[in-house]
Amino acid sequence: MKIREASEADIEQIWPIFHEIAAAGETYAYRRDTTKSEALSIWLASPQKTFVFEEDGRVLGTYYIKSNQQGPGDHVCNCGYMVASAARGRGLATAMCQHSQEVAIQLGYKAMQFNFVASTNGGAVLLWHKLGFATVGRLPGAFCHHSKGYVDALVMYKWLEAETEL
Amino acid sequence: MKIREASEADIEQIWPIFHEIAAAGETYAYRRDTTKSEALSIWLASPQKTFVFEEDGRVLGTYYIKSNQQGPGDHVCNCGYMVASAARGRGLATAMCQHSQEVAIQLGYKAMQFNFVASTNGGAVLLWHKLGFATVGRLPGAFCHHSKGYVDALVMYKWLEAETEL
Repeated sequence: MKIREASEADIEQIWPIFHEIAAAGETYAYRRDTTKSEALSIWLASPQKTFVFEEDGRVLGTYYIKSNQQGPGDHVCNCGYMVASAARGRGLATAMCQHSQEVAIQLGYKAMQFNFVASTNGGAVLLWHKLGFATVGRLPGAFCHHSKGYVDALVMYKWLEAETEL
Repeated sequence: MKIREASEADIEQIWPIFHEIAAAGETYAYRRDTTKSEALSIWLASPQKTFVFEEDGRVLGTYYIKSNQQGPGDHVCNCGYMVASAARGRGLATAMCQHSQEVAIQLGYKAMQFNFVASTNGGAVLLWHKLGFATVGRLPGAFCHHSKGYVDALVMYKWLEAETEL
């Protein structure tokens, strides 16, 4: 598998992954009817960097990294990860999260924060815990799940300074 | 005291307040060298609505309201409040926060969230608690205070549905 920084042209392969996940309304705080051009802005244009994980030229997963806050909060980054449904169960989320932590340290970040993990997304919560993230906040009813209604969202956080550098 | 929606022209009176608070680097996640045009974008152009509290044509305080997340999170709003240093101790923050909760309900929001309250900002933490906000998260070392270094930031949250409407 090859990991590389994404270019705008990668939106063609990122879009089907993004669209499927956003339209489900179960895990990300994006409108279910988010358009391709909005996705381009959210995933590729606004973040500091975006990466794709590809196999034989086919994008299987992607993540972005950006500052979570400005000024006094700009030493903490935020990442978002998406895996193509056909590629789930192969450890891509783990590989991307580990890669993102190394990139975060290279970029000078000291911590990583996930602002809005749906508490119903048990697989993600378990995985982030396994990768060293602590649940540092719980937002009551903050996530309106497409089928389950108002569920809690979690804030997850990891201080990175002690991590080994690339 | 008059409360009204702000227009872009109000940046002239908002800017000195914003600049003093941002430059202090003690309470808001804005760069200390944030420019006037960036402040215009942050405080007036990007939010859903911005209000000013004025006395004899002089702006003493201002707040914005916007969605804290999109899609499955767009029923929770976020607000930011600033009071001119000369007008502190007169209950303006309380009045603005109460006004913002009423506006939030009118706009259809169900909850209000503050993402990044510096734990060293004891007055604000106490005030938000008094006004019904719970501390639902603590982000270790997420706020780099200008003089105190890395301090925790708090996530504060209030469900609004039971509030009396305007």
